[in-house]
Amino acid sequence: MSPVKNGRHLFNEIPTGFPEPGKTTVYDGSQTIDPESVALSPGSFLLKTLVLSIDPYMRGKMRAPSAKSHSPPYTLGEVLYNFGVGIVIRSENEAVKPGDHLYGMHTFEEYSIKDDASAYRVLKNEEKLPWSVYLGAGGMPGQTAFFGWKEYSKAKEGETVFVTAGAGGVGSLVIQIAKSQGLKVIASAGSEEKVKFLKELGADVAFNYKTTSTRDILQKGGPINVFWDNVGGETLEAALDAAALGARFIECGMMSGHDYKPYGVKNLANIVSKAIAMTGFLVFRFFDRLDEFYAEIPAKLASGKLVYREDITRGLENVGEAIHAVETGRNKAKSVILVADEKA
Amino acid sequence: MSPVKNGRHLFNEIPTGFPEPGKTTVYDGSQTIDPESVALSPGSFLLKTLVLSIDPYMRGKMRAPSAKSHSPPYTLGEVLYNFGVGIVIRSENEAVKPGDHLYGMHTFEEYSIKDDASAYRVLKNEEKLPWSVYLGAGGMPGQTAFFGWKEYSKAKEGETVFVTAGAGGVGSLVIQIAKSQGLKVIASAGSEEKVKFLKELGADVAFNYKTTSTRDILQKGGPINVFWDNVGGETLEAALDAAALGARFIECGMMSGHDYKPYGVKNLANIVSKAIAMTGFLVFRFFDRLDEFYAEIPAKLASGKLVYREDITRGLENVGEAIHAVETGRNKAKSVILVADEKA
Repeated sequence: MSPVKNGRHLFNEIPTGFPEPGKTTVYDGSQTIDPESVALSPGSFLLKTLVLSIDPYMRGKMRAPSAKSHSPPYTLGEVLYNFGVGIVIRSENEAVKPGDHLYGMHTFEEYSIKDDASAYRVLKNEEKLPWSVYLGAGGMPGQTAFFGWKEYSKAKEGETVFVTAGAGGVGSLVIQIAKSQGLKVIASAGSEEKVKFLKELGADVAFNYKTTSTRDILQKGGPINVFWDNVGGETLEAALDAAALGARFIECGMMSGHDYKPYGVKNLANIVSKAIAMTGFLVFRFFDRLDEFYAEIPAKLASGKLVYREDITRGLENVGEAIHAVETGRNKAKSVILVADEKA
Repeated sequence: MSPVKNGRHLFNEIPTGFPEPGKTTVYDGSQTIDPESVALSPGSFLLKTLVLSIDPYMRGKMRAPSAKSHSPPYTLGEVLYNFGVGIVIRSENEAVKPGDHLYGMHTFEEYSIKDDASAYRVLKNEEKLPWSVYLGAGGMPGQTAFFGWKEYSKAKEGETVFVTAGAGGVGSLVIQIAKSQGLKVIASAGSEEKVKFLKELGADVAFNYKTTSTRDILQKGGPINVFWDNVGGETLEAALDAAALGARFIECGMMSGHDYKPYGVKNLANIVSKAIAMTGFLVFRFFDRLDEFYAEIPAKLASGKLVYREDITRGLENVGEAIHAVETGRNKAKSVILVADEKA
């Protein structure tokens, strides 16, 4: 085999608002690699990237290194990385062998050489799910829904939950778990197509927040006992006003603040007067309990007990567009980059 | 005994900003009562009011009946009520006898006839504490500090807590409990005299928020693991920026919003990125566990293991001034109205 192109997608510039394709991140098709002959030092292994995840939180990593956060920033001029699945092509590491499918942080390039096998989980995939599913309902977003609900919802049958970004990777699973536990579900999304999906998932009230007032919907359908917050801002304000005594707010994301025009929430006094428990939630704090997740969720996804939907983009050159779609809410469902077919 | 004056203090007008003495509430000295001969129907008992508590939350009850909250509004033209201690003068109720000291909700009048004995707790006061102490460190504010800290602080030795309104009935106890558990305490108050008291209580860093920047203090003394929030607003914003990963915010009051010029908090995304657990706290939800409190705190107050300070105002005619002082932070410590001496 002669050298082949090794396309990659780089972090190029710190954005001030939404990330711009071709500016914030850029595709570079200039590199090549020969998968058969490239040198592997002892302990290293060659990966072929199959699928990569695009998630809202990536925007938070596109910042100046001086701004502190739980997740380190991307480095300018270097390759992006995120959750993905790759297949081992060659290995000089005893922990992984050719043909193994590795789930974990992958760099945004067609081929990569890695040496830390412990950073990856070998996916057996006895359920024969598409690999991309391990990035969505079967991956980090699914884990977010699973652990966030399990630990913080304190949900009781007959209660009401409001789920924002309900058509996304996290929200769509939260809706289904809540319905399976006998809750009334109010769910929002940003397009008519997504609202249709919310209804298919079993939401009792599904609405397009761009054309319908969240405040009106909650006034009619509330009070709410649980709020799954993916957006923050004005929506959080409406939820605070519609909360029942002792409500639980699971703060999973505040996407509405990602464009750096933060909204001032004025009615936080509701937290006191309604004794609301508001919990910020970082899924990585549950990564020592992932076996609980893998023992339950992939099988339910394979059997159809839990349904999922994906928005697949082909090719590393289209990463910038996919990021922009996710950050602006234009993606149709869990966003995934299909880098290569397994047998190609 | 001939009839005596039965002075009382009424709710007169819904305020738009801070309550105004003589306008929001008014004193009425026109009523009389003859304690020896006033008729008592079966089951009722005559109380002489000894002490009454003035608390920040009373402002929330001075609202239009249409505005819903966990605590019912005061009724225009009727007597105010709040926690107090009264002594039984005469009784046609088997559950209470003359000489009993009853803690609970008392109306703001010198004498009152009541019939629900179960609404009161008979205070044995074997510790011989002044009755007013059962309204402060030994009462509802003390219970707030005790249960809020016990349930939500998840404090560990060596951690740092920031306590606002540290010289008040709640804050002063929180500081002492935190110090007894080995935490570093940063505490704020609104006057130099109060700051001196904070230092006496053991605060490691004590400052006057009116003359010193909370943000600067927290930047130097933080990050904070626990935030005891009595004020909300800009202070909450500074605390969010200074919070450590996994910090606990106990939302006990948002006094800064009581003048109905709510401040928009813009950096709530910290709740997600730092996985902050923010819990609104209503002490009445712990009223079925008060025995835990009475078994521990009054004895510690009597022995001096826990110290307290009171700001005592004499006479029901001065209730309006005392309320205004509490709502604007001019009170020097836990505010109490001394209505009558026991033996007078």
